[in-house]
Amino acid sequence: MSEQKNDFTSWYIRTIQQADLMDYTPVRGCIAFKPDGYEIWEHIQSEMDRRFKETGHRNAYFPMLIPENFFQKEKDHIEGFSPELPWVTEAAGEKLEERLALRPTSETMIGHLYSDWIKSYRDLPVLINQWANVFRWEKKTLPFIRTSEFLWQEGHTAHVDEEEAREETMKMLEIYKEVVEELLAIPVYDGQKTPSERFAGAVDTYSIEAMMKDGKAVQAGTSHYLGTKFAEAFDIKYLTKENKHEYVHTTSWGTSTRLIGSMIMVHGDEQGLVLPPRVAPTQVVLIPVGPWKKNPAIVEKLDEVFAALKVQGVRVRLDDSDQSPGYKFNEWELKGVPVRIELGPRDLEKDAAMLKARDEDEKRQVPLEGIVDAIVAELDTMQGRLLEKAREFRAEHSHLNVDTMEDLKAHIEAKQQAGEIPGWVLAGWCGDDDCEASVQTETKFTSRNIPFNPPAEKEVCINCGKPSQHTVWFGRAY
Amino acid sequence: MSEQKNDFTSWYIRTIQQADLMDYTPVRGCIAFKPDGYEIWEHIQSEMDRRFKETGHRNAYFPMLIPENFFQKEKDHIEGFSPELPWVTEAAGEKLEERLALRPTSETMIGHLYSDWIKSYRDLPVLINQWANVFRWEKKTLPFIRTSEFLWQEGHTAHVDEEEAREETMKMLEIYKEVVEELLAIPVYDGQKTPSERFAGAVDTYSIEAMMKDGKAVQAGTSHYLGTKFAEAFDIKYLTKENKHEYVHTTSWGTSTRLIGSMIMVHGDEQGLVLPPRVAPTQVVLIPVGPWKKNPAIVEKLDEVFAALKVQGVRVRLDDSDQSPGYKFNEWELKGVPVRIELGPRDLEKDAAMLKARDEDEKRQVPLEGIVDAIVAELDTMQGRLLEKAREFRAEHSHLNVDTMEDLKAHIEAKQQAGEIPGWVLAGWCGDDDCEASVQTETKFTSRNIPFNPPAEKEVCINCGKPSQHTVWFGRAY
Repeated sequence: MSEQKNDFTSWYIRTIQQADLMDYTPVRGCIAFKPDGYEIWEHIQSEMDRRFKETGHRNAYFPMLIPENFFQKEKDHIEGFSPELPWVTEAAGEKLEERLALRPTSETMIGHLYSDWIKSYRDLPVLINQWANVFRWEKKTLPFIRTSEFLWQEGHTAHVDEEEAREETMKMLEIYKEVVEELLAIPVYDGQKTPSERFAGAVDTYSIEAMMKDGKAVQAGTSHYLGTKFAEAFDIKYLTKENKHEYVHTTSWGTSTRLIGSMIMVHGDEQGLVLPPRVAPTQVVLIPVGPWKKNPAIVEKLDEVFAALKVQGVRVRLDDSDQSPGYKFNEWELKGVPVRIELGPRDLEKDAAMLKARDEDEKRQVPLEGIVDAIVAELDTMQGRLLEKAREFRAEHSHLNVDTMEDLKAHIEAKQQAGEIPGWVLAGWCGDDDCEASVQTETKFTSRNIPFNPPAEKEVCINCGKPSQHTVWFGRAY
Repeated sequence: MSEQKNDFTSWYIRTIQQADLMDYTPVRGCIAFKPDGYEIWEHIQSEMDRRFKETGHRNAYFPMLIPENFFQKEKDHIEGFSPELPWVTEAAGEKLEERLALRPTSETMIGHLYSDWIKSYRDLPVLINQWANVFRWEKKTLPFIRTSEFLWQEGHTAHVDEEEAREETMKMLEIYKEVVEELLAIPVYDGQKTPSERFAGAVDTYSIEAMMKDGKAVQAGTSHYLGTKFAEAFDIKYLTKENKHEYVHTTSWGTSTRLIGSMIMVHGDEQGLVLPPRVAPTQVVLIPVGPWKKNPAIVEKLDEVFAALKVQGVRVRLDDSDQSPGYKFNEWELKGVPVRIELGPRDLEKDAAMLKARDEDEKRQVPLEGIVDAIVAELDTMQGRLLEKAREFRAEHSHLNVDTMEDLKAHIEAKQQAGEIPGWVLAGWCGDDDCEASVQTETKFTSRNIPFNPPAEKEVCINCGKPSQHTVWFGRAY
């Protein structure tokens, strides 16, 4: 009986709790990130931050509280976000004259400030990123994936013209794709969102979309070309070389702690957490087995391996506690540790140890001579293998032959009956909002994005049968 | 006419604005940290974080919103913080059943969670740190020094007994002292706070105290031994090896973005910002001078120096813009850049360049051969020199011969008349709260701390003349 297949949400909750990644709190939808959960975020942060800086961005920090009138300035923006805002109405014993929102995103505060910071073409481009907590008071929450408070980075840039701003939008989407694939081993489709799925206030929204093991999609990062909408709302103008006043073109882009949840849902197996080596808080655990206490040479050898791995920068733990090996194996597997090394008297006689990769069924013998290199190599191999497995899973559950609404309903029905996941379908779309809405109403599948590199081109709209304008991924989504 | 001497606050505001470190926002007491201001914080973070991790701490993240009832659980804590709390009372269009405070510090939320996380002596110690934004709705604010929202780190640890918890409290204070002295070149006195100046809910509070150029003190970091107060309030008990239930002993410790303000007030000069090399966003600026555009060899040489400095990890900028050298000199001095290199045709003929350290009056010639090493060495020297200068300044304004209240009043009066700063006085104190309060009422001097290593021991209480129990730094404070 497969919990992961039959009740994915229960499996997910059990997995993150057994791995000690988070805890619930009494504040609705707000979780505590425990050290192992938070460290995964630190690895994501450090890799993203490095790439942002390499591409000329700098970090800044803006106030978390946003005056209510700021939201009124961009119509689409307030419509999109106002239903989810928490409000500060009192402070230091007094009622505030104007309510202050807990930021759901910072376009408005930053727009207000940029109008002051940007005067001339010499001030452009402005390339700023912020690491911060944000708030969206959601009805249904799920740890890491959708929480009332979450951590994220939000880039906010301003440019002389559309061309440069669009280039920035694409550049950051590409960085997201690279980091998510290389660091988290999550394959994604990059593409454009349909108008109905755009960020509130954007001219164009682009996303990377990942498939979870229940076949649902997670929007793992978004990058927006905002045109001059926020520039007009907040009067962000600059003096051109020709001495004319022009609105800047702005972008914004974000990724969040939902990446942690996505990673868990992409790689986890029946037993629980499987961590890609590059973000694992503990990459390797060394466990003495057999009657090891009577044979001090075993722990001595493990100490030696431990020290040599440390020198190589590997995050390694030696578990010489009193628990049984079986207990330890299970505990470290639940924590998703990528590589386990076992060493007992019989192994030592053979000048070898056993190596078990978290994502493989069998353990294998590795000679003690050169074991450090073998472990480092295995971490690298496993990182690539997880990405490959996730690609295979996604391919298996991506359906390219669903051409009509009848096909789609039949497909979903058939999968349901077989106890299988419906996955994603690649479908043609005529570009009409109503056709897109029909798909959702009738199947709960929503458009994920219009991929830049679809595995096929679809000729007719899945709803109306007219010639398609776009080839779109449809699927259920978090 | 010295602005720094005559109107320190105006000098400070001008300095941080000309250096482009921050901006005001429409939210009361909340500032925006611009990239150069934020990068200083990033350097502080990175050094603190490294030391926390080296000493076995891990980062985590806790909800920002704290239910009102949590504050009721520790009496002193609520009394200390409730006057400054902002409250969320509505979210997503509905009134909340219970108000949620924006955290002023996280002892209560963390206490609540630790009571769940800690069950046995095996779970101890818990050594966790959090990097976060916090809120204290203050009446009078000053950028970086006292703002309604600020950034900080807060460590929260739990231990089996008082001894271990007190050891932790001291260890973290020592790390603060080292980082503040070594990275920010701010000399501090470490010592114990008097009971009236304790953190709300602490058994003992320790601090590091720094002297600004106006003679006022800034509490630059605090470390608290909380005893079992929060453990009792939140029922954090563990099972001992002897199978008994005992309360844990907790600590907390914090440093914040006020360190940025302190650094500015310690090193800034009449002209404005002076940055210690180790935290300067730009450490070295290269400026071509004279008729350099006609002589391409000049910028070529500077490009070469630029590349070589980059390789050494130096944060260097080449300013080959069209402005005049004088304009550039001024601009980069206002930004506090530690080292400026000038190269013109006449310098090049002599195979030399001019080097100007931000904190010294004269520039000097350095041979082009070996110039990279010379620059790197100068950064190092300047770092030490700033600490030394700050130590001298502090010694000059630390008064050890003020023994009675009459002495103190006369001292303050005399300094005022001479247009000089009163600085700090080292005074005896009998330990009576009323005597301490008298000093404040009559002179606005407050106790800073009871230094571990005072420059002298004082025998009698400055207020009542009875034998002193403690030797205390008194001064005005931010």
